[in-house]
Amino acid sequence: MSSAPKSAAIIGGGVIGGGWAARFLLNGWNVRVFDPDPEASRKISTVLDNARRSLPALYDRLLPPEGRISYHEALSDALDGVDWIQESVPERLDIKHEIHANINTHAPEVAIIASSTSGFKPSELNTNGQRIIVAHPFNPVYLLPLVELVGDPDHCARASMVLNALGMYPLMVRKEIDAHIADRLLEAVWREGLWLIKDGICTTKELDDAICMGFGLRWAQMGLFETYRIAGGEAGMRHFLAQFGPALKWPWTKLMDVPEFTESLVDLISDQSDAQSGHLSIRQLEHLRDDNLVGMMRSLKKSQSGAGATLSTHEQTLKLPKSHDLPITVSRAIPQSWTDYNGHMNEAHFLEAASLATDQFMEMIGAGPDYVAAGYSYFTVENHIRYLTELHSGDRIFITTQVLQGKGRKLHLFHSIIGPNGDIAATVETLLVHMNLTTRKSALPSAEIEEKLKSIANAHAAYPMPDGAGRHVGQARTA
Amino acid sequence: MSSAPKSAAIIGGGVIGGGWAARFLLNGWNVRVFDPDPEASRKISTVLDNARRSLPALYDRLLPPEGRISYHEALSDALDGVDWIQESVPERLDIKHEIHANINTHAPEVAIIASSTSGFKPSELNTNGQRIIVAHPFNPVYLLPLVELVGDPDHCARASMVLNALGMYPLMVRKEIDAHIADRLLEAVWREGLWLIKDGICTTKELDDAICMGFGLRWAQMGLFETYRIAGGEAGMRHFLAQFGPALKWPWTKLMDVPEFTESLVDLISDQSDAQSGHLSIRQLEHLRDDNLVGMMRSLKKSQSGAGATLSTHEQTLKLPKSHDLPITVSRAIPQSWTDYNGHMNEAHFLEAASLATDQFMEMIGAGPDYVAAGYSYFTVENHIRYLTELHSGDRIFITTQVLQGKGRKLHLFHSIIGPNGDIAATVETLLVHMNLTTRKSALPSAEIEEKLKSIANAHAAYPMPDGAGRHVGQARTA
Repeated sequence: MSSAPKSAAIIGGGVIGGGWAARFLLNGWNVRVFDPDPEASRKISTVLDNARRSLPALYDRLLPPEGRISYHEALSDALDGVDWIQESVPERLDIKHEIHANINTHAPEVAIIASSTSGFKPSELNTNGQRIIVAHPFNPVYLLPLVELVGDPDHCARASMVLNALGMYPLMVRKEIDAHIADRLLEAVWREGLWLIKDGICTTKELDDAICMGFGLRWAQMGLFETYRIAGGEAGMRHFLAQFGPALKWPWTKLMDVPEFTESLVDLISDQSDAQSGHLSIRQLEHLRDDNLVGMMRSLKKSQSGAGATLSTHEQTLKLPKSHDLPITVSRAIPQSWTDYNGHMNEAHFLEAASLATDQFMEMIGAGPDYVAAGYSYFTVENHIRYLTELHSGDRIFITTQVLQGKGRKLHLFHSIIGPNGDIAATVETLLVHMNLTTRKSALPSAEIEEKLKSIANAHAAYPMPDGAGRHVGQARTA
Repeated sequence: MSSAPKSAAIIGGGVIGGGWAARFLLNGWNVRVFDPDPEASRKISTVLDNARRSLPALYDRLLPPEGRISYHEALSDALDGVDWIQESVPERLDIKHEIHANINTHAPEVAIIASSTSGFKPSELNTNGQRIIVAHPFNPVYLLPLVELVGDPDHCARASMVLNALGMYPLMVRKEIDAHIADRLLEAVWREGLWLIKDGICTTKELDDAICMGFGLRWAQMGLFETYRIAGGEAGMRHFLAQFGPALKWPWTKLMDVPEFTESLVDLISDQSDAQSGHLSIRQLEHLRDDNLVGMMRSLKKSQSGAGATLSTHEQTLKLPKSHDLPITVSRAIPQSWTDYNGHMNEAHFLEAASLATDQFMEMIGAGPDYVAAGYSYFTVENHIRYLTELHSGDRIFITTQVLQGKGRKLHLFHSIIGPNGDIAATVETLLVHMNLTTRKSALPSAEIEEKLKSIANAHAAYPMPDGAGRHVGQARTA
């Protein structure tokens, strides 16, 4: 591919067309939109706003500079010089045929022409000998990687390279079929779900909970077959099939048009499953699954979505140990996701733990989330961290917090991270300043907080100045 | 509930029974196992090992001390004084009936008796007038929150409180039905999936990709109906239903026993959807969904699972800007997940960004992952961070890295985090020591690295000592 900016024509600018526009634009392509809807530009802008606040945040690197978006009244104009044409008009074959004929007349010869159709097969789209492939994406198109490709293998292979460069995951469908692959699975769930709602077994919320509190979490990181391979245990996929095959004859869904469970189908599935996952033992698959589940559920905790809300509620019932010494502000295990390629806890997560210790200290003095909601907070202005011993996944640690100074706007804390052997694994010296959140300027804390801090600071004054406080980076230990 | 440790009897110790044992044990319950299989203890130990490496890592607080696990040859012994009895024997009604009769004879009167059955209804289990409820969990039981509860409402309500205290999510099923809720949806996908494999549309791996690269990610945080509500856009659920209802008549799955799409079904679903999600606008739902997707995909990057692998591959094609000044070691946007309750980037993530800058610097001098794999690395021993201006979600930052000293075992770096206005948002002064990863002791770097460091350090010596280097926490700015 050349280094000149490429361009894509977006034909039809709804949620799907807008999502495609965002995916191309934020990856540096120029985008030319054709949509007779007078609202098209407003609708696409909304999708673009969503995409701009999320897609760049996905990466630890900056995406290339955005391309340019333009709106065109004539289809021929929108198609001028483009490398990719994406049609996302309503799901009616007559509408598709009409627009495809027009696209065919004006499209540059080298351009890939793709339809976002969720249902139609290339053979239905190309009845007039056109060269349209199916490139079926999933909402939100700017974030979800999956694109099902169906149609001419050469065109699909070229399309595949482009989609990879956009950070997407092209999936070649081996034989064309109504609704391709994913939407067939979705349609099956939808049909069964409608029965469950209609029959009063559950509400829409309860059905959603049945998904996102259980198998939804499994499917975000492994699919159906790999998950069931694990369920089969060391005996593998064949064992699972032997165990669960009979359920096909049971009234476990209202959708009873089931395939015959022949020996050759069992062989086909077992062999494909071996090819897919056979390089990992069941134990390795379990560890991978569990680490992924922990990582995802932890990431859902912040938004209180699904399993994240359950986790958060449970966590609040877990109490910190009482201490007659310096207060214990953290007591926890180290998650696998906190480790790095050196096989130990990454430097940043020592500070994450200390930051939680500071949060806990804030709760102790009445400067927690309620105080923040009232417009005041402490901001950290400096941290000094000394890493003394390595910590590893699963290690249990606790943190004690000593007040070095707590007067006026300044709060000077010293956190000691105690490792599983009782050694100090790290120390974090932290300086905070009390802030007015409206002016974003420093300010004096409330009298209650000042009073509390004073009494804690007085009590902590009985402890010696901790080893390592007041030091600069690289200062000799004996100094 | 009293504060004395509670105890649970685990009847049948396979993957599900073992998962229950782990869930109780790691939440401080004593566990009494009955399973005639001589391998039971080995099998449960394997599940416990998995649970011990993952469940505690889920929380930012320590779980209570583990309970005690014991194995019993007599069922009556296992049931002695327990508060909860969980039966997870094979899925055959005659086996269930036999063991339930025995449990009934020996169970303490106050104990909850629950079956893990995935298929049978309470009315089938309790044909002899017993008081067994269904408590159907999902593998891995020690991590996934969902438990479907079916049966006597009072028993289920009591069970619900216990499950909440174990960090689980009890879902009351309103009417008993074969396979409850989630497994009916799973069975529908399974049946459709078997057709797709059998008909050669895709392989097991391709089908799994069609799930975890697309709708699986959606379902880990919102279910079917909330996702479709968003797809309906501002027009809401009713609009979605009008648009997609007709698909029920189309050959989009082989499972054609569909419910009639009557007006009253449309009303039922729309009303339930309003009750479920009506407190959030579509825009709010979209932001929530997108933040969750970004968070989960970022968490999958480390393990290279599903969308995490796609993300990682794409990220490696994104280049850092060239610099004729100090090298640029990070160039990125701030994800929403890096912010905290103060509405700005959390202190720990400044260090996460700087840690990525150090990683990039390591690549520059040839001390990246390959060097680590060969048994050598640099470990951070000290960091000093000064927070100068706030950063927010979406802000684009870059980091420049200056070598202050690079000689022998020591490497002294100074990272400047540059915010969106070109101001220095923070500085991170970091001291690293070169390590032999086998002895876990400091050691001299290779001659190549020493040479490279020397030439970079010489070039950087032309720059002034940065403002803020060599300072201790709280040092006055004028000092």
